[in-house]
Amino acid sequence: MKALIYHGPKNLALEDRPKPTIIQATDAIVRITTTTICGTDLHILKGDVPTITDGRILGHEGVGIIEDVGADVIGLHEGDKVLISLITSCGRCSFCKKTMYSHCLNGGWLLGNSIDGTQAEYVRIPYADNGLYLLPSDVDDEAVVMLSCILPTGLECGTLNGKVKPGDFVAIVGAGPVGLAALLTSQIYSPAEIVMIDLDDNRLEVARSFGATKVLNSSDGKAAEHVMSLTKGAGVDVAIEAVGLSATFDICQTIIAPGGHIANVGVHSKSVELHLEKLWGSNITLTTRLVDAGTTPMLLRMVQSGRLDAKKLVSHRFLLSDIIKAYDTFGNAAKQHALKVVLKSSSGGDSKKNL
Amino acid sequence: MKALIYHGPKNLALEDRPKPTIIQATDAIVRITTTTICGTDLHILKGDVPTITDGRILGHEGVGIIEDVGADVIGLHEGDKVLISLITSCGRCSFCKKTMYSHCLNGGWLLGNSIDGTQAEYVRIPYADNGLYLLPSDVDDEAVVMLSCILPTGLECGTLNGKVKPGDFVAIVGAGPVGLAALLTSQIYSPAEIVMIDLDDNRLEVARSFGATKVLNSSDGKAAEHVMSLTKGAGVDVAIEAVGLSATFDICQTIIAPGGHIANVGVHSKSVELHLEKLWGSNITLTTRLVDAGTTPMLLRMVQSGRLDAKKLVSHRFLLSDIIKAYDTFGNAAKQHALKVVLKSSSGGDSKKNL
Amino acid sequence: MKALIYHGPKNLALEDRPKPTIIQATDAIVRITTTTICGTDLHILKGDVPTITDGRILGHEGVGIIEDVGADVIGLHEGDKVLISLITSCGRCSFCKKTMYSHCLNGGWLLGNSIDGTQAEYVRIPYADNGLYLLPSDVDDEAVVMLSCILPTGLECGTLNGKVKPGDFVAIVGAGPVGLAALLTSQIYSPAEIVMIDLDDNRLEVARSFGATKVLNSSDGKAAEHVMSLTKGAGVDVAIEAVGLSATFDICQTIIAPGGHIANVGVHSKSVELHLEKLWGSNITLTTRLVDAGTTPMLLRMVQSGRLDAKKLVSHRFLLSDIIKAYDTFGNAAKQHALKVVLKSSSGGDSKKNL
Amino acid sequence: MKALIYHGPKNLALEDRPKPTIIQATDAIVRITTTTICGTDLHILKGDVPTITDGRILGHEGVGIIEDVGADVIGLHEGDKVLISLITSCGRCSFCKKTMYSHCLNGGWLLGNSIDGTQAEYVRIPYADNGLYLLPSDVDDEAVVMLSCILPTGLECGTLNGKVKPGDFVAIVGAGPVGLAALLTSQIYSPAEIVMIDLDDNRLEVARSFGATKVLNSSDGKAAEHVMSLTKGAGVDVAIEAVGLSATFDICQTIIAPGGHIANVGVHSKSVELHLEKLWGSNITLTTRLVDAGTTPMLLRMVQSGRLDAKKLVSHRFLLSDIIKAYDTFGNAAKQHALKVVLKSSSGGDSKKNL
Repeated sequence: MKALIYHGPKNLALEDRPKPTIIQATDAIVRITTTTICGTDLHILKGDVPTITDGRILGHEGVGIIEDVGADVIGLHEGDKVLISLITSCGRCSFCKKTMYSHCLNGGWLLGNSIDGTQAEYVRIPYADNGLYLLPSDVDDEAVVMLSCILPTGLECGTLNGKVKPGDFVAIVGAGPVGLAALLTSQIYSPAEIVMIDLDDNRLEVARSFGATKVLNSSDGKAAEHVMSLTKGAGVDVAIEAVGLSATFDICQTIIAPGGHIANVGVHSKSVELHLEKLWGSNITLTTRLVDAGTTPMLLRMVQSGRLDAKKLVSHRFLLSDIIKAYDTFGNAAKQHALKVVLKSSSGGDSKKNL
Repeated sequence: MKALIYHGPKNLALEDRPKPTIIQATDAIVRITTTTICGTDLHILKGDVPTITDGRILGHEGVGIIEDVGADVIGLHEGDKVLISLITSCGRCSFCKKTMYSHCLNGGWLLGNSIDGTQAEYVRIPYADNGLYLLPSDVDDEAVVMLSCILPTGLECGTLNGKVKPGDFVAIVGAGPVGLAALLTSQIYSPAEIVMIDLDDNRLEVARSFGATKVLNSSDGKAAEHVMSLTKGAGVDVAIEAVGLSATFDICQTIIAPGGHIANVGVHSKSVELHLEKLWGSNITLTTRLVDAGTTPMLLRMVQSGRLDAKKLVSHRFLLSDIIKAYDTFGNAAKQHALKVVLKSSSGGDSKKNL
Repeated sequence: MKALIYHGPKNLALEDRPKPTIIQATDAIVRITTTTICGTDLHILKGDVPTITDGRILGHEGVGIIEDVGADVIGLHEGDKVLISLITSCGRCSFCKKTMYSHCLNGGWLLGNSIDGTQAEYVRIPYADNGLYLLPSDVDDEAVVMLSCILPTGLECGTLNGKVKPGDFVAIVGAGPVGLAALLTSQIYSPAEIVMIDLDDNRLEVARSFGATKVLNSSDGKAAEHVMSLTKGAGVDVAIEAVGLSATFDICQTIIAPGGHIANVGVHSKSVELHLEKLWGSNITLTTRLVDAGTTPMLLRMVQSGRLDAKKLVSHRFLLSDIIKAYDTFGNAAKQHALKVVLKSSSGGDSKKNL
Repeated sequence: MKALIYHGPKNLALEDRPKPTIIQATDAIVRITTTTICGTDLHILKGDVPTITDGRILGHEGVGIIEDVGADVIGLHEGDKVLISLITSCGRCSFCKKTMYSHCLNGGWLLGNSIDGTQAEYVRIPYADNGLYLLPSDVDDEAVVMLSCILPTGLECGTLNGKVKPGDFVAIVGAGPVGLAALLTSQIYSPAEIVMIDLDDNRLEVARSFGATKVLNSSDGKAAEHVMSLTKGAGVDVAIEAVGLSATFDICQTIIAPGGHIANVGVHSKSVELHLEKLWGSNITLTTRLVDAGTTPMLLRMVQSGRLDAKKLVSHRFLLSDIIKAYDTFGNAAKQHALKVVLKSSSGGDSKKNL
């Protein structure tokens, strides 16, 4: 089969590989019909993720058709259309029991990391009952593939950790795909105002079309000031950090109201300065999180009922055979006005069940 | 009346002052029978609290008898025995509606700060219905005065913000009065283990007698290592910072388990380094808080039912006339083996109702 | 002034009365510009509410302009435009501290009940800081008067007690004004499906236009069966009872899924049969509630930000001088296709501040 | 092996049966060292549980040593000492994802019900990783076997569903083993007062020794009156129904305070009359629940840390070979002053690991 292989920093290749097979009785093999590229894949490409070694098939998002299941898979069958979760979880360990699947002692983020991933024609999914979600055959692949990683990340690490409530004033710093996912999912909880902060006017324009009630270009270095003025000095109820830099974290800790929530979503490579000399008495809450993807079933119901337009996030489409080009587009997102790029298998997504 | 007056850094005096009188219809005047000194009073004495000006009567804790009430006080009457809360709250503003009384737009921490306090024979209490709690006449003053500030602080900023749960492994860094208050109140929620960390062996011994299941002297600089070993590498569910220094905050962020809660109680005068490069994916929660004292009624029921031995915190007793000596003892707590020092009026605490 | 007076069952009259004046220092006098009639007023008219005696001015909803304030009112001033809450709360008692304002020991539902109400040119509001909400001058009176009672009732007793969550399947039994308020406010929390059940096709049509995804006329006695079929036998996550009869309660207990919430909103005059022989092991939660109206500030932000179209509930408009006719219309709601009827003062709603 | 066999109502026999063997790769076989009898087993014996057919081995509680594990069991090994949970859960279905294990689509209460149980020398446990808890070898079997069913039931259906909080006034109706388990586990959350209500003075005496602060014999028909008087007319914060009769449910709905929680634990065979005509406006919450046993790990930490004395519940001990006699004793609990009767295998409980 064709698969995208990582050969060290800045070195990707589309190569032929043997089709994966069942190893454990709880495995399933999925034929990928739709996949996509994550911002994390770009970090990998830069060599920033040391767990990933030469020869690994990348990718942790996807929709496909079940090709084979192990003997102990109980809820899935050959021919089923499924969503692949980025998180592998055993459903049995102490972290799974706390619904912290990202920290599963036998799983976590494995796909396209410590085991082969989804940017290929086929993938092996361990603990398939927990890592796959059965889809109705008429659901739109492009909408649903946004539920593998990006939307649960925005929802869990941003919206839910930030405890967005009806009537809240929310600020989201960073209008990349993750920030936009936080923007889309925040609206599930009906805040009164959402201000989006970024350096790129194009992304801010997208944010406005996605439901931001205010947008701020922070290139003047005065974003925090502007937010304080918008809130008449009160500060925001929720500040979502979706970049991963000291400067953007700083905006969040400056604008947070007493009693407010700072939800850190960004992946930081350095420590930040936390102003406890100002915040010690502010009744604030600061959270960090890996996406657990426990909200996928809820998001699926939202998409199916038409209340969440997940497809909005898709800006470009490619065939899997053009994945190198797709990485190029996604890697130059600002210039290409790219949000999420979707990859389709050339053979299409028909479920055997529907033939 | 006699009152303890602040005359600038390191300058206290017991002086004669006019008795306070009703100013607003929602005020009450309380004759103080028991008061105590807070760690914050020592900070004031050092000149660290700029809101406090020359001539201020200090003190924000106390038990007493109501001497007079304004026309709009509805639940209290002359002769009632009452507990004084450190927090003044109007009960009407947006913060009071969210039970964030410490941030009350018309109150907050005023006593012994922006208005005259309780280290005196009488005190005026604004919004008396919200700032005073009716006490049964047979309750022990020394136990109950611990509910003015220290126990709600340990409970709200430490135990509740830390979300201490049954079966948890809790670490408390700092075994001063606030850390001990966190220790006592943590046990309300039945954690399995509480490890107490301090530099002072005497305080650690006290901690053990107050219910700590493990104690660690951190003077070897290896407290975090020891805690990780005690938890078999898992880390703690709750880390309570009750000192206010960078080094003690560091212990907390090093030992916290994935999914854990760091509750900052200490008053910090400098920023700290937050290791988001390690913690961004740890699903942790970090909180700060001023004490709101909304838990006082619950603590009162706990004391009255005998389930909380608040009096344990009292190590020394003085007459109000000896308050300068009492400050001296409390100011040299380590040497004096002092926890909380209690001050009694010479006239005693009898309620008129009971004469 | 003109005021609607209750003179016993089926006996209302618009009469002249003296203008109310300040009694307590925490009172305010409000000139009513907009008021409305509640379903409870119809119950009163039938003689069903024994606390209401001959001579009482009815009404507990309203928007107006402050005419006078007592000396201890701190956040409101003459000329302010305000929303009147149906609930009077002292902000000081044990129930107010738990935000159960409806059970306030010094308040609760007093207006148009044990004290004179809002269906008049002026009204006295006790504890004005807690019973009035400051409004911007440009807000729409008709939208905002829906926040005095009907929308907080639907939200608190229905949506919040039912714990409506994103992706839920919700059933609401009863499409009268309260059921419709539950329908509007449920959507704040983004359920996937809301099925509305009623006997009146016209009301069901309104429900559909208000966002119900399914409607069921229960006149065939098979509503529960139909719901079970819609949910493929799973039952609903939330069942909201908005009628107050045994038969409608029965639908709720029949269709509730394991783990689901039944929120009783209806006022019942008889006991109901609870099928614990079926439900004892179903992990269900059943709630009852008086509206506390603590959610009014949130609803106000939702209306101001345009996320809640409260005005949809208004079907008819009258001058206060025509209130007897308005009662007639509202009392024949099915025939008149009436939802909420709004009453405007003839003098209009201009704020002195804006003149 | 020896096993207790159900042969229809009132017909039990200790018989020889083949040792169970692994059927699914996720199974384990456990050699039982300690088991006990549940109140539910007595219901079965009366013929009240129609899912149980002739020939079934009874019992759903136990401690033992793993004898064999299937190929897909990941956290357990031959020789491990384990606690058996009454609940079988797949860890993969929608109910397991919501931690409602009792409603697991592939499990639930199966042991001693639809599959053979634990009152035998060996038992097969499906989904062993989810149905067994690893025990340290030095833990007391008699204490820990109380965590198979009785203590999680009291905790989850009573204490947690009742939302027992520090300082609460709690009433528990029924001082049988389940009521006593609610009593023991309520204390984890530090209520101020717990009143225990029963018809049997002996059981009330036990309750007092288990921590009840008040006891009431309800044989005078005035239990509700007495509770209202104890609470000075306020009613209780939490009422736990641990009997399953209309009369005991009635006490609960009569004594509940506004804002209070009624937790139904009892198994009801008939419907009850719910007084919504009184309770519709009382802001009460009523819950029902099957035990999910998700709290077992927490209870285990409580027992290991010495904070929960689970062994208190054990009143009698027998060898498994005397199980018919044990049923007799437990079946005449009032006369025999029996709480829980424990059954030990004659071969003892040594773990192979420790030999």
